[in-house]
Amino acid sequence: MIIVIQCKDRVGLVGSIATILARHQLNIISMREHVDKAEDLFFVRLEVEDGNIGGLEEALKPVLPVGAIISVNPIPYKKIVVLVTKEYHCLADILVRNYFKTLGATVQCVIGNHNTLQNICERFDMPFYHISHEQMSKAAMEQQISDVIQRYAPDYIVLAKFMRILSPAFVARFPMRIINIHHSFLPAFVGANPYKKAFERGVKLIGATAHFVSNELDEGPIIAQQIIPVNHSFTVAAMVKAGQEIETAVLANALKLVIEDRVFVYKNKTVVFG
Amino acid sequence: MIIVIQCKDRVGLVGSIATILARHQLNIISMREHVDKAEDLFFVRLEVEDGNIGGLEEALKPVLPVGAIISVNPIPYKKIVVLVTKEYHCLADILVRNYFKTLGATVQCVIGNHNTLQNICERFDMPFYHISHEQMSKAAMEQQISDVIQRYAPDYIVLAKFMRILSPAFVARFPMRIINIHHSFLPAFVGANPYKKAFERGVKLIGATAHFVSNELDEGPIIAQQIIPVNHSFTVAAMVKAGQEIETAVLANALKLVIEDRVFVYKNKTVVFG
Amino acid sequence: MIIVIQCKDRVGLVGSIATILARHQLNIISMREHVDKAEDLFFVRLEVEDGNIGGLEEALKPVLPVGAIISVNPIPYKKIVVLVTKEYHCLADILVRNYFKTLGATVQCVIGNHNTLQNICERFDMPFYHISHEQMSKAAMEQQISDVIQRYAPDYIVLAKFMRILSPAFVARFPMRIINIHHSFLPAFVGANPYKKAFERGVKLIGATAHFVSNELDEGPIIAQQIIPVNHSFTVAAMVKAGQEIETAVLANALKLVIEDRVFVYKNKTVVFG
Amino acid sequence: MIIVIQCKDRVGLVGSIATILARHQLNIISMREHVDKAEDLFFVRLEVEDGNIGGLEEALKPVLPVGAIISVNPIPYKKIVVLVTKEYHCLADILVRNYFKTLGATVQCVIGNHNTLQNICERFDMPFYHISHEQMSKAAMEQQISDVIQRYAPDYIVLAKFMRILSPAFVARFPMRIINIHHSFLPAFVGANPYKKAFERGVKLIGATAHFVSNELDEGPIIAQQIIPVNHSFTVAAMVKAGQEIETAVLANALKLVIEDRVFVYKNKTVVFG
Repeated sequence: MIIVIQCKDRVGLVGSIATILARHQLNIISMREHVDKAEDLFFVRLEVEDGNIGGLEEALKPVLPVGAIISVNPIPYKKIVVLVTKEYHCLADILVRNYFKTLGATVQCVIGNHNTLQNICERFDMPFYHISHEQMSKAAMEQQISDVIQRYAPDYIVLAKFMRILSPAFVARFPMRIINIHHSFLPAFVGANPYKKAFERGVKLIGATAHFVSNELDEGPIIAQQIIPVNHSFTVAAMVKAGQEIETAVLANALKLVIEDRVFVYKNKTVVFG
Repeated sequence: MIIVIQCKDRVGLVGSIATILARHQLNIISMREHVDKAEDLFFVRLEVEDGNIGGLEEALKPVLPVGAIISVNPIPYKKIVVLVTKEYHCLADILVRNYFKTLGATVQCVIGNHNTLQNICERFDMPFYHISHEQMSKAAMEQQISDVIQRYAPDYIVLAKFMRILSPAFVARFPMRIINIHHSFLPAFVGANPYKKAFERGVKLIGATAHFVSNELDEGPIIAQQIIPVNHSFTVAAMVKAGQEIETAVLANALKLVIEDRVFVYKNKTVVFG
Repeated sequence: MIIVIQCKDRVGLVGSIATILARHQLNIISMREHVDKAEDLFFVRLEVEDGNIGGLEEALKPVLPVGAIISVNPIPYKKIVVLVTKEYHCLADILVRNYFKTLGATVQCVIGNHNTLQNICERFDMPFYHISHEQMSKAAMEQQISDVIQRYAPDYIVLAKFMRILSPAFVARFPMRIINIHHSFLPAFVGANPYKKAFERGVKLIGATAHFVSNELDEGPIIAQQIIPVNHSFTVAAMVKAGQEIETAVLANALKLVIEDRVFVYKNKTVVFG
Repeated sequence: MIIVIQCKDRVGLVGSIATILARHQLNIISMREHVDKAEDLFFVRLEVEDGNIGGLEEALKPVLPVGAIISVNPIPYKKIVVLVTKEYHCLADILVRNYFKTLGATVQCVIGNHNTLQNICERFDMPFYHISHEQMSKAAMEQQISDVIQRYAPDYIVLAKFMRILSPAFVARFPMRIINIHHSFLPAFVGANPYKKAFERGVKLIGATAHFVSNELDEGPIIAQQIIPVNHSFTVAAMVKAGQEIETAVLANALKLVIEDRVFVYKNKTVVFG
């Protein structure tokens, strides 16, 4: 069982929380706590042994500051919808994990602005919606995407190499619930064609960044990042290919962290109890 | 201020501890907790804001199981003695950090079974004791080393590429207080000449391991390990040279972890709140 | 176009080879050369621009020492057969790459000693042969496997978490053509249950090793290895899960290296021009 | 013996070069070659067994395109001058390697715009020049630095955390001979206070970049980069401290590469035969 709490900091919080858990006879297996002194914020994640959590949230509320965010999840189990364009690597990885039930979440459907990846979805009996960005206004397209998403009511929307920029209006409907994989180690190479820019700059590392989507392009809170070494022998195409491996790994890792309730968001940052 | 506690696990420990801290008006900045379910052991490390810790240990004792190990360190400050043979890389790194006061500990003296590194010690005004293993029994040599150590009463003895095997009798005098850097990623390549063995096996990684010394050769609890890639172009000598970089880094990291009270030892393992 | 040559070393080899390539108007894009001085062996891999390679092998032979191994591959294109047991991660990764034609090789069929992975193969229209090890002698089982393999005449046989030990007789039929993924950084934790052993030893790294299969268990020439950090919070099950990620990545990398003619084998080692 | 050649590409270069080496009875131990197709440039680095290199450069010239850069170094041996401000970590690492003769180069002197590091230099009998930036124009200060440098005629000038920006006029005197360590993975966080910016952006990686200095701030050709993971628990000060470890390692690696004649510069990029 996972308990996560985010609230204003004050002396005695851990004691109050732990005392209530003890009263519920819930043994703490693992605990991660962090205080952001500058922001005066308190974050805690507790894994407790299975037990009776009836009334736990209500019991916690009075000992926490007003406005505390409390989440008690008997089983970390999330639902996700995936948006794609043409590249397969992130999607296929997610579909395989979903099929073998090791994702820790259920993929409900896939939406593509191209139909390139329809066949792989069908092979996994995964509903695929082709909503083209052509011959349609951006607003109309986003409305259609939004309609499909709301039909499924997912916890998270995963942009698995979805190559269209979403409007602030769309993003506002799903605050801190859209996860994107960007193909560079942000804040280097914001925007389009990061591998081309990396090639031209002659960097010796390329990377990928999984982040929540905010209104600023590639500026949302970062969940996970990783890099791989490259050298002069890498063409742009070779960088793209190598980058796809790291994109897949970083997005898989970020999803695992989010799905297991290990990620807190505040301001433009995350606390990640990895 | 750092508080570390290790004891038998039971429901309510975190609550009891945190309640006492709150009563002392000590605000918890960061907290790491771990329970080893199989061994039924509880480990916690707390960083609290500076405040009044008078009587804290006594206040904690009654709420903890019998036999609890409690340590309250207002300033994490340790004393160490370093043993060396001929290789300079780990020693020089430690001397430099000590000189610039970034080690988090004080190096009290260096003992070498060769005098190769006497000059570098003198350049840093560091006492150096040359205790040769030649023309002396192992017991006599260890007695001399032990005498020097006990004169300084260090918290830890660091084997910074000390190439003699210490007897069980010697090790028993300083239980879990001797830290060794072994030049392989244990348990691969136990014993002598690990780089030669690595070369012959044709591995694609070499590594280093910092561990506490127990009576079994290279079998003590591991504190930190790291690796670097190698390939067919590496001779044994090139592996040794590359390995020295990683040995230096791993030992520096392990010392930091130990010095900051981040390492708990039990059975033949460590809990490391890195 | 890829040209690889392995032979006894002597002065002038590169000049002789390059002169012949120049005569064929083949421009060298990239060249990697290595000499093992102790063994007096010469290895070279050349990527040349497309051109006329008719008669190239015959032209090279006279300028090379007797017994030289020469391979000129206009397109690096290999055929592989995959052997599995129950774990899906390596197989699924290979099937996905094969389906999207990014493997650089064709998977011809999959053979499983359990039928657990039959369904995923069928979803990719991949022939699956269930050859159980039960109610059959090892020799009989291996004969059946060998029969299927020989029907397809693959370049390589990939053990993608195939959990049966193959007999020397079987291995001898496919010398240096069987690639295994072992779930530890060899030579640590040879044999069964490496993660359990890693847990008990309290290591801070776990890893995976892709190697050619020889007659000695887990002793064949190593192609690629990689590690990931672990800590005290990892149960054996968590290590297995984390390890599967690295096993998948290491096997994918090793296959890429072998498929692109970047791996030379001699004695019990490899030269890898990565 | 190291031979490096950079020139326009054309068919037959490797053959011509290798044939001449064979005529000189120079056996090639290791060879790295790269062609930048877009720029039509050829780069080669050869390690040959010791032998007679008299007249080799003259023999090579006629078979290479006009303007070829040829370097034949019987012993890779360079001289360097180090510029510092207040931070010790990179300088101390260089001084230690220099003292133990493992740098592969000779440090001739150290110039500091503060005198903070004078004492450590003196402990290693290293000449230290204190040239303050205070009460002096930038031009005057750079003239003094330049005077000291020219007295020693070093191959390379190493900015080991030298925190003043050098003028284009100064840089132009030592084209592609000034090596800087920048405390971020470029091109992220160009300019001042990269760790502060990294903290504010909430990145999960920090890094360091060693590069040649050109006229654009932090825009010169990159030699080496590396990163380390960070998380929410890192204050700016903790990032600085962790970053210093990676700065030291990256600069040491870049110096090794440059000193061993493994780095070619063209346009704003490097070819590194690592």
